[in-house]
Amino acid sequence: MKGIYFDGKEAAYREDLPVPVPGPQESLVRIRLAAVCNTDKEILKGYRPDFQGVMGHEFVGVVETSPEPSLVGKTVVGELNAACGRCIYCRTGRPTHCRDRRVLGMHQKDGCFAEYMTIQTSLLHPVPEGLAPEKAVYTEPLAAAFEIMTQVSFEDREPIAVLGDGRLAYCVVQAFASKGQQVTVLGKHPEKLELFAPYAQVSLEREKEAYEAVIEATGSPEGIRQALSLVRKKGIIVLKSTFAGEVSLPLSEVAVNEITIVGSRCGPFVPALEALSSGKAVFPPLTLFSPADFKAAFAYRGFKAGFEFG
Amino acid sequence: MKGIYFDGKEAAYREDLPVPVPGPQESLVRIRLAAVCNTDKEILKGYRPDFQGVMGHEFVGVVETSPEPSLVGKTVVGELNAACGRCIYCRTGRPTHCRDRRVLGMHQKDGCFAEYMTIQTSLLHPVPEGLAPEKAVYTEPLAAAFEIMTQVSFEDREPIAVLGDGRLAYCVVQAFASKGQQVTVLGKHPEKLELFAPYAQVSLEREKEAYEAVIEATGSPEGIRQALSLVRKKGIIVLKSTFAGEVSLPLSEVAVNEITIVGSRCGPFVPALEALSSGKAVFPPLTLFSPADFKAAFAYRGFKAGFEFG
Repeated sequence: MKGIYFDGKEAAYREDLPVPVPGPQESLVRIRLAAVCNTDKEILKGYRPDFQGVMGHEFVGVVETSPEPSLVGKTVVGELNAACGRCIYCRTGRPTHCRDRRVLGMHQKDGCFAEYMTIQTSLLHPVPEGLAPEKAVYTEPLAAAFEIMTQVSFEDREPIAVLGDGRLAYCVVQAFASKGQQVTVLGKHPEKLELFAPYAQVSLEREKEAYEAVIEATGSPEGIRQALSLVRKKGIIVLKSTFAGEVSLPLSEVAVNEITIVGSRCGPFVPALEALSSGKAVFPPLTLFSPADFKAAFAYRGFKAGFEFG
Repeated sequence: MKGIYFDGKEAAYREDLPVPVPGPQESLVRIRLAAVCNTDKEILKGYRPDFQGVMGHEFVGVVETSPEPSLVGKTVVGELNAACGRCIYCRTGRPTHCRDRRVLGMHQKDGCFAEYMTIQTSLLHPVPEGLAPEKAVYTEPLAAAFEIMTQVSFEDREPIAVLGDGRLAYCVVQAFASKGQQVTVLGKHPEKLELFAPYAQVSLEREKEAYEAVIEATGSPEGIRQALSLVRKKGIIVLKSTFAGEVSLPLSEVAVNEITIVGSRCGPFVPALEALSSGKAVFPPLTLFSPADFKAAFAYRGFKAGFEFG
């Protein structure tokens, strides 16, 4: 089959990949649409040196075979962390932190940049009737934004700032907007902020100590320092950015000002699918590339690149 | 009067200090016992370059004059942050973070290392009948430890580690012990850990990812990195240490492992006084020095140094 394969050093488009054979708890999914995440680009830079396999973890597909007969033929999206079910994290309701987890396109599990993929059946979610694949493909990154709401109650925490004007920030804003919660997006690029304007206040200013909560979604190591200056004392910073390397911080400020920093990663698919399905969360269309042209997709600087398979 | 005065560069024992005159909302307190905090030593190292005045903020005294007649003649302890009552933090229940606060012995307000001190009357707490001054003098540092419980619910967060074996860690352990909550103290010094053994499990080991909550009370910039290695995914680190300068951190780990870091500083006097008064929190006696001998008190390496005035 066709797919984009990472050999541990670099990615290549291949047409000779074997169609994967599902394990006992797994379903076989024919990929319709897959989207490029920043993590995929980070893998090319060495973020996951131990990984070899088909890349990608954001997808919409159709179930070809499954131990769950009701799923066969259904259009689905899927979560990326396959958990062991036995470790301390699995036994205490934290399967996305499973010690032995396999992660689609990242760790010991082939991903979705191919014609077919296998996946643990319990990770699949049927796409609701009427939700187009072009929209459903945003479920995974939007779910990661909804994770914030499972961690922090924002009711008594206004004003809220979202720091950043890229795709990560956009997902966060859509999660808040779909809940009817007002936020201010603090960006650097007027042209990028235009995309946010229908859903949030936007600003190029950085007013110090003006926000009870700051969602750090810059994708940059500089973000946390700015967040520390924007947040009020006893306020909350939600940390969404991931990147390689260390960051230097005036950590005593965190103690003295009693700031709370909440790390946040993968999130729940159900509210994300609901928000997309009801039209409460809105995304620009993917820009589609041929899988053979994956280098152009990875280099794409617009909103989001994707691939159509089959 | 006699007192220990910091002129912005160094401390000196003086006998020519004027007895302070209370402002309209203030009481005049005759200091009986005052204790040395690590912050006092940090001031000598340049932690508060703008401060000039009488040092010290941990005390027990007797009210000499007060706009509140019922307080006159009472033995009292007192909080250190005098708030403006008008700023955003005062109006939203965060007076210890007041923008214009004056802080005893630290910022725009003379402290308690003297025969007399004035203090905003609302900051005073009468010492309960039967609680000796030698014990009541620990109210302020113990209150700072109780702040943790106002910020985090630990009920479903066991096992809990307290990282550090100094005075800060001891206060934290007493706060937990007085609530009947089991903790493990992770120290470096067997001889210091002996002091903790009646109230907590003690250990020289550092088991990775073994604790749902880690109270970082080392007083050192190294503490946070250790805490990150000890805490479980989705766990909590409470940051108690303050120090000058920056710390380098693998910040992506916080996001990827969804760690929460909670900065924590001054806390509520009421539960601290209750715990001391009921005997549920227990402290070793202060080692008393003459105020003239303050250099020896500041250099003291035992549990805690203090001064008797009058």
